[in-house]
Amino acid sequence: MEKAEIGLIGLGTMGSNLALNIAEHGHRIAVFNRTRARTDAFVENSGALRDMVVPCYSLEELAAAIRPPRPIIIMVLAGKPVDEQIEALRGVLSDNDIVIDAGNANFRDTMRRFSELSGSGLTFIGMGVSGGEEGARHGPSIMVGGTEDSWKRVEKVLTAISAKFKDEPCAAWLGTDGAGHFVKTIHNGIEYADMQMIAEIYGILRDGLGMGPKEIGTVFSNWNKGRLNSYLIEITAKVLAADDPKTGKPVVDVILDRAGQKGTGKWSVIEAQQLGIPATAIEAAVAARVLSSIKDERQAAEKAYGNIGVTRISGDKDALLKDLELALFAGKIAAYAQGFAVMSGASKEFNWSLPMPTIAKIWRAGCIIRSQMLDTMAEAFSGGASTNLLMAPAFISLMQEAHPSLRRVVARASEAGAPVPALSSALAYFDSYRQGRGTSNLIQAQRDFFGAHGFERIGEQGAFHGPWGSGAAG
Amino acid sequence: MEKAEIGLIGLGTMGSNLALNIAEHGHRIAVFNRTRARTDAFVENSGALRDMVVPCYSLEELAAAIRPPRPIIIMVLAGKPVDEQIEALRGVLSDNDIVIDAGNANFRDTMRRFSELSGSGLTFIGMGVSGGEEGARHGPSIMVGGTEDSWKRVEKVLTAISAKFKDEPCAAWLGTDGAGHFVKTIHNGIEYADMQMIAEIYGILRDGLGMGPKEIGTVFSNWNKGRLNSYLIEITAKVLAADDPKTGKPVVDVILDRAGQKGTGKWSVIEAQQLGIPATAIEAAVAARVLSSIKDERQAAEKAYGNIGVTRISGDKDALLKDLELALFAGKIAAYAQGFAVMSGASKEFNWSLPMPTIAKIWRAGCIIRSQMLDTMAEAFSGGASTNLLMAPAFISLMQEAHPSLRRVVARASEAGAPVPALSSALAYFDSYRQGRGTSNLIQAQRDFFGAHGFERIGEQGAFHGPWGSGAAG
Repeated sequence: MEKAEIGLIGLGTMGSNLALNIAEHGHRIAVFNRTRARTDAFVENSGALRDMVVPCYSLEELAAAIRPPRPIIIMVLAGKPVDEQIEALRGVLSDNDIVIDAGNANFRDTMRRFSELSGSGLTFIGMGVSGGEEGARHGPSIMVGGTEDSWKRVEKVLTAISAKFKDEPCAAWLGTDGAGHFVKTIHNGIEYADMQMIAEIYGILRDGLGMGPKEIGTVFSNWNKGRLNSYLIEITAKVLAADDPKTGKPVVDVILDRAGQKGTGKWSVIEAQQLGIPATAIEAAVAARVLSSIKDERQAAEKAYGNIGVTRISGDKDALLKDLELALFAGKIAAYAQGFAVMSGASKEFNWSLPMPTIAKIWRAGCIIRSQMLDTMAEAFSGGASTNLLMAPAFISLMQEAHPSLRRVVARASEAGAPVPALSSALAYFDSYRQGRGTSNLIQAQRDFFGAHGFERIGEQGAFHGPWGSGAAG
Repeated sequence: MEKAEIGLIGLGTMGSNLALNIAEHGHRIAVFNRTRARTDAFVENSGALRDMVVPCYSLEELAAAIRPPRPIIIMVLAGKPVDEQIEALRGVLSDNDIVIDAGNANFRDTMRRFSELSGSGLTFIGMGVSGGEEGARHGPSIMVGGTEDSWKRVEKVLTAISAKFKDEPCAAWLGTDGAGHFVKTIHNGIEYADMQMIAEIYGILRDGLGMGPKEIGTVFSNWNKGRLNSYLIEITAKVLAADDPKTGKPVVDVILDRAGQKGTGKWSVIEAQQLGIPATAIEAAVAARVLSSIKDERQAAEKAYGNIGVTRISGDKDALLKDLELALFAGKIAAYAQGFAVMSGASKEFNWSLPMPTIAKIWRAGCIIRSQMLDTMAEAFSGGASTNLLMAPAFISLMQEAHPSLRRVVARASEAGAPVPALSSALAYFDSYRQGRGTSNLIQAQRDFFGAHGFERIGEQGAFHGPWGSGAAG
């Protein structure tokens, strides 16, 4: 039998879909799953692609089925299972084989694994994959970290199976070791912020304007035709339109408001903190999910505070809707600016030379945060935007147009009692960022008063102390 | 010569002041500094306390000068110098001696050191000290982590030198290993939020109301007589009143708005994330300091955005000032609620049984965040407040009174363009926390749509999926 070009371990939802995607693009694939039954089920359900799939029932069989040097994708639970899988593979693979971890690994684990395998003869790739099940099956966005040489050896198959924006594949090599998984982490962090801002706008429409799910769905559906055009807005419209078959009610009204999270949001925030780069919109989104999870405590608090609730927001409805659309747009820009700034900091810290234009480009299709706006970002970065997205000429214009709406929305929501943690963080970030003279002169005075930390003077070099006299630190 | 009761290594500003404080309370102290000249200078400047100080010029001499079992305080730079000092001490100390790290250590290092010394015969205490130089000299707040037995052996001297609130010493044993340094870290995190909120209010008064430093100083001075009474408000009034001897201008007007930070704010945020407890006001404060540090970028942004500036806030001035006072009060409550919630999470995670009433009590005097409000908090926790400070009856009343002002201030500042990252985070936290039915039902619907993550239904057990049909993940 003809040898397979590539192997895949782990036939869960993501792994199965990725394997079918690879097979469909004409690459014979050898597959293995710890549970034999799952391999059999996969083969049975592979339909017309059956001939391109080589089921294997041991790692030895898997290795034998693939033409060396072998690329093998691992799609198992992040963490210890990945280490165990790598360890097991070392026994059956040969020099120059490539182990590709396609799970949601913490990039620090990826860096460790990369370094552990270095010198072993095997090569390691950490590959971020975004797009959910649908993306895995029909074209995800693929973010690769590893040696450039190892990328070249898998480039053909990965670009083939990736999503395409117009004709450009949404798969790229982003740098060594943990670069791919790091970028995937920040992608998810931005996704958290994006989803949270949408939820905040939904909350204002629901509680501040008293609109029902169907009506709100229509609003999002209309927005999806404009500047907010994106996958997340599209599916927001869809889920708001959907009815629950069991009760006939709009499905969002029967869903419990308790959100889960899997760690990438938290990792984004921790790494941003380690790097000293503000990522407040992502932080707000992670915090919002945490608060959502303590439902019982929230219900007790609502009772204790006598149901302060959300008061109705009055005014011209069309103007309000326009403001909400632009506010969401402005908020998104600030959140993405933060995400890219964090990647820029990491790129320096880890010597990755992350290619920002490429990252924006491969996020234009396939992944969860794909949007029209990312095309504008790709252009901005290709045009040389370097410090912060908020400084790219295209985004200066967009923000100049949209920031007044963000202000009005944050103000109205704050007064009405509708929580807007991510939108207000985004506004505060923008306002702090564009303020030449801030207020931390006062903080420096306080720090010098109580801790003799010293301060800088405007237009002078050196550290100075204030004339605080007795009672102060000095 | 009579042996000393205690030793101290590291005669920097904090170490010198702590040593004089100990001597003044009648405890003979042996001191050592790596640089001989500094020891000599310290002795020369010890004045009337000269007889209580035993200068030592080697670690051997230091050990010989103290009555065993010896307590020795290390006050050197956090990090590697502490490890080196401990290592060097192991050569000269004997069984049952106690090494006390009084620097700003990361509590994870303290836990490691505690465990490394366990079984060595030596005992380790990680001790958080707050109060700046003035506090160290005349009474700091002291947060101790270590074995209860080791605490009992140093309790007398530590309570003697600590600040007193009425007659109660602001020194306490808080739990094993890293408990003291953890609580000190969160103390500092809260301090970041507190200072940032004050700076935001200052910014509104300066840019939104067009007031000068002196006038703003008077406002803070008046507030210090009311519910905001605290050390930080007191010194804010003082620094705003002070003139620069060189130029004759108000000193805050000659200070560069670029704030420094030393790590405890960042640690607070990272640990809060690790524990999964929202600390958004602290995060906002850390981010604000980072943004303050990129002054050149901010000035470029101001220019690029055509100096949007801060527009004047109109309205009755007395009413505005009252709102600002109450807004700051409400914002502080939310920030403290977050800080205590983080400690509560850490207490479970690290099995510390942190005593919240005691923590609030020892923060009532000596430390930087000391305030009248902390007395109310101590009462609330002593009265059994357990989940979140926002659920303590006293604070429910206070927040019910103050939250409308916080709303109005966040709204006015957002519209005017004055950055209020910490105040708006505090409001969003409060509004999310007291909302029984939030908006993450939408997030769960989205997550199920693109990733088949499943959701809970209201009033039902189990995980469910939506009727999304084709195009969705499932």
